[in-house]
Amino acid sequence: MLSIGAESAVWTREHYSTLCDLADVLVGKILVDVSNNTEINHHKESNAEYLASLFPACTVVKGFNVVSAWTLQSGARDGNKQVLICSNDQEAKRTVAEIAQVMGFTPVDMGCMSSAREIENIPLRLLPAWKIPIFLALGLFLCFFTYNLIRQVIHPYIREQKNKLYKIPIEVVNTTLPCVSYVMLSLVYLPGVLAACSQLYYGTKYRRFPDWLDQWLQHRKQIGLLSFFCAALHAVYSLCLPMRRSHRYLLIETAVKQAVEKKMTIWVEEEVWRMEIYISVGIIALGLLSLLAITSLPSIANSLNWREFSFIQSSLGFVALVISTLHTLTYGWSRAFDENQYKFYLPPTYTLTLLVPCTVIIAKVIFSLPCIQHRLLRIRRGWEKGRYVKFVLPSATGEFSSGETSSNV
Amino acid sequence: MLSIGAESAVWTREHYSTLCDLADVLVGKILVDVSNNTEINHHKESNAEYLASLFPACTVVKGFNVVSAWTLQSGARDGNKQVLICSNDQEAKRTVAEIAQVMGFTPVDMGCMSSAREIENIPLRLLPAWKIPIFLALGLFLCFFTYNLIRQVIHPYIREQKNKLYKIPIEVVNTTLPCVSYVMLSLVYLPGVLAACSQLYYGTKYRRFPDWLDQWLQHRKQIGLLSFFCAALHAVYSLCLPMRRSHRYLLIETAVKQAVEKKMTIWVEEEVWRMEIYISVGIIALGLLSLLAITSLPSIANSLNWREFSFIQSSLGFVALVISTLHTLTYGWSRAFDENQYKFYLPPTYTLTLLVPCTVIIAKVIFSLPCIQHRLLRIRRGWEKGRYVKFVLPSATGEFSSGETSSNV
Amino acid sequence: MLSIGAESAVWTREHYSTLCDLADVLVGKILVDVSNNTEINHHKESNAEYLASLFPACTVVKGFNVVSAWTLQSGARDGNKQVLICSNDQEAKRTVAEIAQVMGFTPVDMGCMSSAREIENIPLRLLPAWKIPIFLALGLFLCFFTYNLIRQVIHPYIREQKNKLYKIPIEVVNTTLPCVSYVMLSLVYLPGVLAACSQLYYGTKYRRFPDWLDQWLQHRKQIGLLSFFCAALHAVYSLCLPMRRSHRYLLIETAVKQAVEKKMTIWVEEEVWRMEIYISVGIIALGLLSLLAITSLPSIANSLNWREFSFIQSSLGFVALVISTLHTLTYGWSRAFDENQYKFYLPPTYTLTLLVPCTVIIAKVIFSLPCIQHRLLRIRRGWEKGRYVKFVLPSATGEFSSGETSSNV
Repeated sequence: MLSIGAESAVWTREHYSTLCDLADVLVGKILVDVSNNTEINHHKESNAEYLASLFPACTVVKGFNVVSAWTLQSGARDGNKQVLICSNDQEAKRTVAEIAQVMGFTPVDMGCMSSAREIENIPLRLLPAWKIPIFLALGLFLCFFTYNLIRQVIHPYIREQKNKLYKIPIEVVNTTLPCVSYVMLSLVYLPGVLAACSQLYYGTKYRRFPDWLDQWLQHRKQIGLLSFFCAALHAVYSLCLPMRRSHRYLLIETAVKQAVEKKMTIWVEEEVWRMEIYISVGIIALGLLSLLAITSLPSIANSLNWREFSFIQSSLGFVALVISTLHTLTYGWSRAFDENQYKFYLPPTYTLTLLVPCTVIIAKVIFSLPCIQHRLLRIRRGWEKGRYVKFVLPSATGEFSSGETSSNV
Repeated sequence: MLSIGAESAVWTREHYSTLCDLADVLVGKILVDVSNNTEINHHKESNAEYLASLFPACTVVKGFNVVSAWTLQSGARDGNKQVLICSNDQEAKRTVAEIAQVMGFTPVDMGCMSSAREIENIPLRLLPAWKIPIFLALGLFLCFFTYNLIRQVIHPYIREQKNKLYKIPIEVVNTTLPCVSYVMLSLVYLPGVLAACSQLYYGTKYRRFPDWLDQWLQHRKQIGLLSFFCAALHAVYSLCLPMRRSHRYLLIETAVKQAVEKKMTIWVEEEVWRMEIYISVGIIALGLLSLLAITSLPSIANSLNWREFSFIQSSLGFVALVISTLHTLTYGWSRAFDENQYKFYLPPTYTLTLLVPCTVIIAKVIFSLPCIQHRLLRIRRGWEKGRYVKFVLPSATGEFSSGETSSNV
Repeated sequence: MLSIGAESAVWTREHYSTLCDLADVLVGKILVDVSNNTEINHHKESNAEYLASLFPACTVVKGFNVVSAWTLQSGARDGNKQVLICSNDQEAKRTVAEIAQVMGFTPVDMGCMSSAREIENIPLRLLPAWKIPIFLALGLFLCFFTYNLIRQVIHPYIREQKNKLYKIPIEVVNTTLPCVSYVMLSLVYLPGVLAACSQLYYGTKYRRFPDWLDQWLQHRKQIGLLSFFCAALHAVYSLCLPMRRSHRYLLIETAVKQAVEKKMTIWVEEEVWRMEIYISVGIIALGLLSLLAITSLPSIANSLNWREFSFIQSSLGFVALVISTLHTLTYGWSRAFDENQYKFYLPPTYTLTLLVPCTVIIAKVIFSLPCIQHRLLRIRRGWEKGRYVKFVLPSATGEFSSGETSSNV
């Protein structure tokens, strides 16, 4: 494909030396290095730089390595359209960019040859932004799972010699998933609260956040999506409850017991209300979370402007957190004050999960008090405690980008 | 980022005056106005025009204001890639367009400086296309909710002094949601019917539709998505019904009553069939609606050509409307003719919802009669009642675009 | 829109002759042919070539026909941005490409005029990649539906004169859907296994696969998505089971029978466990399949590099297949060995569906044995049985693309 014009050629690093025979023919030609490595930072120098050292009489351009063969085959209609290009020779770079453009790709200039290493690492990445959020979710899942296992299975076994092992696959998992989902959702909004605290404390927005907070702010989307995934699983698990054989058996046994005792009514108004509100609020929370998840799809996020995106992710998301809290509270009802619920002196799981979300909600309410909100707004527009900012050109760029970034919080 | 080449600079309107000191240095430079306002049409003139008036010796180009800091930071891989540019100076515009292109963005020429106002308003929009459809959905929800509340809660209270308040959070909502969803779905196809009527009546497609119809035609996607959202919520609510405590109590009470009376069988064949068909048809309708919703995602809609898109949205959508009608009819079964269903002389809710959808279905059936279909097709290909169209160049463009637009109907 | 500059004009084939009067005015102009046909390969020559023959004194460029009027109207923000252009005149092509670019579209050079026919066929396509997969799914559905109908409805009628017709709309469909979904999922991974076998047998990756295998490999995405669609429908149908009137009647009848016989307990530990595991594993499989479906959305697939995409689609997908197999096996439990399950000597449906998936799983396990895995890896890196590959330029391009393609397997 690239050999049209006979001025470019394609190969992989292992075979570079076999090309040395052709050195005479290639003099003055543009060589496009499309190679990929098998490991990140595998060699000391990038492949493209190694190639340039082998053929000093040629101009080397790095490019096309991020485009998969699938995309090349099916055309740029499907698949990613960006071709990252770098070279020390402007003219050669422009030639290759034009070839890419004509093929329907979008060439992106990544500067001079020293970027080749970075470009070569791109195809080797494996979901780097997801690693921390996934481990976080797994960690939370394990903790809550163990806790629920002790309360729901081990406690009845030790105290009453009752075998409740059958509860593990569905019931224990289904009390664990909402805890993970709820805590993760609050962890999406916690870093924003911390960032606002830091800005209020230092009275400026130009102070960099510590690295851990910066990382956290950048992983909010992934944490939120995992929270939604757990919430969706929780919904499916809950809906499956009446399908289970155990549910059927318990229902029939209750009915038979009532019939034998000739008790005609078992209606408990409070229990009915608790369940109706609990389910209803849960569905609304799930509906809001799915709107958040859908608008974070790249194609939809790209069609929104910043104001729309932050309205949905920030305002609607916070409403979802509040409604999830209501869902948790109606689930608990008055059981937090019932001594029988404290198995091995362990409080019910849902009381533990309330900690972080309630902190976030209280903090957000405090920040919306007029005096504090006003101060925060001034800081985010560039005002600084204790000094007058003289406007100079170099900081102008900074103003713009960080101004926008902090409204991101 | 933009200060490379030292010929462009970035700032916000409040600080424009502080730049006047630099007027001498900036002579002959290109100034890129990246500023945004806080309100739509905040100032009489656009920021870019105000800047141009302050620096008559510079060339001003509007651009980059629609790109969020998030996109600038993470590169054009994520986020919207379009940079809208306008200026009175072609050369300056080209320079800025090249900078944008090299950064991986897609510059779009928006013409001369008078477009700056429009470009500056873009980042301030808040989902303008959704406002009418959302209010429509809320309005319908309120009407049907009140109607169902009267029939399901207030009527039994007044007539039989029975407290059915517990039905509000789930049962009343769950009879309201499908009504909203069903009526909204028919409102997606109604404007197309009206447009076809108008074209048949006037015998031409070159007559502009009245404004309200035009607006309606443009909001069909949003109305359809809200209809799907309500349908999905209705599905989740329905699936939750057997999880409720009230369902459990009623079931056990029925069983106990039967056991005490030693009635061994309570099987009603007709009720069984009604439910099986009703649920089955509902699932098929939901499946079709989710296909419609998925194909209206921007990234999927973009990968379809016009024929594929209209096949799915128009033909499959109409099938979904017909199946939803079947779902509604099997739900009703023979109850529309049962006097006891007319509480306070109010007919069952589903009979009210049938009005618009049935009109649409009947109209579509009439339009598919050969004689009418043929006439409509001729009109949409440019034929006009009562005159021979001589083909001239200026109308050619019109022919093309309106010809396509009306097939859109 | 295109008439700016007065050097281009727009019309449809039927009206080409009416333009002949203007031949004098158009001399030396660029004519942009934006026309579309109503049928694939409707005329012998493309419209653009026909136009060129009518106006030998003009330069004809084909373009803009793939852009819908909707996109032209709403701007390139929504809708597909690619404009495919071809012409025999390079200069004219560049002019039109620039106009397209300025309008915010992405011009793609499709070469010389002979491509016009291909470009004109694009807007007439109707989901060509979906045809085979949809017929496959429908065929499988019909086979399994008939099989289940015989076992679940016809058998009890003939043997015991029991009317079970009410099972058709939900129960029979709900035992058919998972079969279709499960077999389709295994058909996504079978062609990869066959391709690996072929590569191992011939000891090379440069041998082309037979056409049917190539076609199959290219339809895997569509087959997988249909498999997910059936799985999702199966989930919804299953969740609806407890909502049915028949479920309610059977439950109450059982309870009454138990009560009359004063049997206080009906708990069967094995049945409870089977159901809990069966449901739990099913939910996990569905969760994995939805991840696969979401990552095959164009906008998400485009944001992944090749390694990430193949990790999710290939590794996670295989895990989903294994978990679906567990789901099927726990559903079956020991019933495959129960003589009563063989109605009319027909084995239970799920035993039939296990054939292909188990073959795929066993083959994948064999391929992961160190000796075979090593050989396969060497073949995919370009090693060939029985000859030393001398590296020459022309094959280099082939090496690159087919190397990537086969890792695709």
